[in-house]
Amino acid sequence: MESPFLKKIEHIGIAVKDLDTANQLYTLLLGAEPYKSEYVESEQVNTSFFKVGESKIELLTGTSGQSAISKFIEKKGEGIHHIAFEVEDIVAEMERLKSLGFQLINDTPKRGADNKLVCFIHPRSSNGVLLELCQSIAEKE
Amino acid sequence: MESPFLKKIEHIGIAVKDLDTANQLYTLLLGAEPYKSEYVESEQVNTSFFKVGESKIELLTGTSGQSAISKFIEKKGEGIHHIAFEVEDIVAEMERLKSLGFQLINDTPKRGADNKLVCFIHPRSSNGVLLELCQSIAEKE
Repeated sequence: MESPFLKKIEHIGIAVKDLDTANQLYTLLLGAEPYKSEYVESEQVNTSFFKVGESKIELLTGTSGQSAISKFIEKKGEGIHHIAFEVEDIVAEMERLKSLGFQLINDTPKRGADNKLVCFIHPRSSNGVLLELCQSIAEKE
Repeated sequence: MESPFLKKIEHIGIAVKDLDTANQLYTLLLGAEPYKSEYVESEQVNTSFFKVGESKIELLTGTSGQSAISKFIEKKGEGIHHIAFEVEDIVAEMERLKSLGFQLINDTPKRGADNKLVCFIHPRSSNGVLLELCQSIAEKE
């Protein structure tokens, strides 16, 4: 049975030291260039996105030592940082998971990269895995 | 542009200490039970699989201290262990990536869980991320 709540793996976030070098590597790996690059001020990260099937690979590099990505790399080295799932109603999903004992890192959805509302779930409540919920924000016509 | 070589994220492998506990947690998270459990003798792991969109979450626990999963947890703790991409022709894809400088961990495809031929790419050649290629083995009619 497929999950009725988490619709797909929206993206996998990978923490890298140097975005240009990593972009070159993933372009070779996938045989396709990133379709988007974006600076996310709230997270102090530069990002780039590659398409794989219905999902994306998001490369992230910190733009300051205070960025969560810079701290992650300092502690654990480069590697997979989080898994993001697409949801249809992020507020309802946050309520559902909170009531089941998952620890939300933010209590209200916040604006993430790639036109999303996002919420992170603390890895201590999910077997060491940083999980993200994300809901697409409808583009204005 | 979507990757022409890596068709989708086939699964994300997550290393866990206790498979029963993790199965309960991911059943809550996803609102769906694992559709399959499998012992993989060659890797000394017990696994379970959940469906999310076109992809899967694979939980893995080592059945001996010699298992790569047990060693991973000992070194890094529980967490995301690898990303697996579906390919149509694993041998061709291994050749392509080898020629681009990626370091294959096995030189010929080996039998993995869930009826797949698999090959791993060393994280040192891919920004700290352990990558897996996998090709479905046609089921006999």
